[in-house]
Amino acid sequence: MKVRRSDRLIDMTRYLLERPHTLISLTFFAERYESAKSSISEDLAIIKRTFKYRGIGILETIPGAAGGAQFIPSISEQEARAFIEDMTNELSQEDRLLPGGYVYLSDLLGRPDVLRQVGRVIAREYVDQQIDAVMTVATKGVPIAQSVSSYLNVPFVIVRRDSKITEGSTVSVNYVSGSSERIEKMELSKRSLPRGSNVLVVDDFMKGGGTVNGMKSMIEEFDSKLVGITVFAEAAFSGRRVIDEYTSLLKVDQVNTIDKTISVSPGNYLDKVFKND
Amino acid sequence: MKVRRSDRLIDMTRYLLERPHTLISLTFFAERYESAKSSISEDLAIIKRTFKYRGIGILETIPGAAGGAQFIPSISEQEARAFIEDMTNELSQEDRLLPGGYVYLSDLLGRPDVLRQVGRVIAREYVDQQIDAVMTVATKGVPIAQSVSSYLNVPFVIVRRDSKITEGSTVSVNYVSGSSERIEKMELSKRSLPRGSNVLVVDDFMKGGGTVNGMKSMIEEFDSKLVGITVFAEAAFSGRRVIDEYTSLLKVDQVNTIDKTISVSPGNYLDKVFKND
Repeated sequence: MKVRRSDRLIDMTRYLLERPHTLISLTFFAERYESAKSSISEDLAIIKRTFKYRGIGILETIPGAAGGAQFIPSISEQEARAFIEDMTNELSQEDRLLPGGYVYLSDLLGRPDVLRQVGRVIAREYVDQQIDAVMTVATKGVPIAQSVSSYLNVPFVIVRRDSKITEGSTVSVNYVSGSSERIEKMELSKRSLPRGSNVLVVDDFMKGGGTVNGMKSMIEEFDSKLVGITVFAEAAFSGRRVIDEYTSLLKVDQVNTIDKTISVSPGNYLDKVFKND
Repeated sequence: MKVRRSDRLIDMTRYLLERPHTLISLTFFAERYESAKSSISEDLAIIKRTFKYRGIGILETIPGAAGGAQFIPSISEQEARAFIEDMTNELSQEDRLLPGGYVYLSDLLGRPDVLRQVGRVIAREYVDQQIDAVMTVATKGVPIAQSVSSYLNVPFVIVRRDSKITEGSTVSVNYVSGSSERIEKMELSKRSLPRGSNVLVVDDFMKGGGTVNGMKSMIEEFDSKLVGITVFAEAAFSGRRVIDEYTSLLKVDQVNTIDKTISVSPGNYLDKVFKND
């Protein structure tokens, strides 16, 4: 059955959104809808225009009968800024304050709407870079890694402080916890990351950077390359950070456990990502 | 600027897909596109038809000027069956065999395409039930919980065997690990689950059911209600399971560590969910 344009547009939109960074050929769509390639090309041009206008992302189209299209998720500066401002307000709520000056984040990192935006925002930063895997450390980094991985359409791997029998053989590295100066160990399943991968590191919170630095060593152990580091929130840190090149969506400037106040501001993300736009 | 139908269909499709189980009013769409409500109603009817025909899900439309639409993600029996068969083949690969008869799953549970389908499949089972939160235990259940939570559009909560300072006050329960008969402890942040929640429990793997039983006790501690239990894979278990009512996508029937063979078959999901369709 030949499919009408309106039906094609709806199904193609869904199909492309679910498969970011994947080239779908004109031939595939033409067969799926029993329609001429010229009609499919016109459909793709309409989708491209709407995706751009609505800030959904970029539809890269490759012209010609052998061509096709791939969807590159993105986010506009305006939407990214609004999201980061929202999160700044959320994090500033004084009831998030925990003993030791930590900030409660688990509710936010369990909300699908928040995770969707975190994923879009972080994926936007690396849109022009080759990334083969997203890496994080268990447990609270996992939701962030998963969301970013879905927008980049690459797998994510979880480094663990306690390896389980269900991981098989692992590679372990020692690292110095930046805040406590203690030596810790982290492990990654040997088969989870192919040698020579380009790896993006994400995490929920960074203080001294020790954990992230551990992941950096882990990436070296796998003969792989660190492409970038992005964290949801960084804490103000008085000592010397072991990591100097990173991106943060949010910055927890000051935590006062006596007055019970938290002061949060946007991290360096907006400046880094939209500076040259 | 009045928006053309084709542009509306594309943007509405995206907008609805990103906000499952959320009623979007006709008024909202009419203002967004500066179009008449009657045109929006026609658009929604087209989207509804395509979503149904392609097995994407159900678009529930509420007629009248005060009406709107909400997207209920679903999956066809055919697509669910194909996915489960795919996973059966994946899991049967002998190189997944780990010492102790465990099966390596981490690669699958780090792949965005697999997680998308796991989420759709599990969400389909509970489409007619009220669910307020998805619960799992760290670490490997997290990706499953997150994906299900995104299709049900409710938050997920992570029970931990080792609570961290960043969780704040926790409630802890003891449980008997079904396979080893050891007494273990799990904890959940006090503020992560409101009293009286309807909770869906998901996990990656179930042997004796001890961990899942622990989560059941946890739900009681929060004066909440267990709605259902669904696991990605269950293992054949010779003892008496502490949990008898659950759904599994896959069943690991036999693991032979000497011959290095794994025998995997579909779990009870397809029978339970599509029996009455």
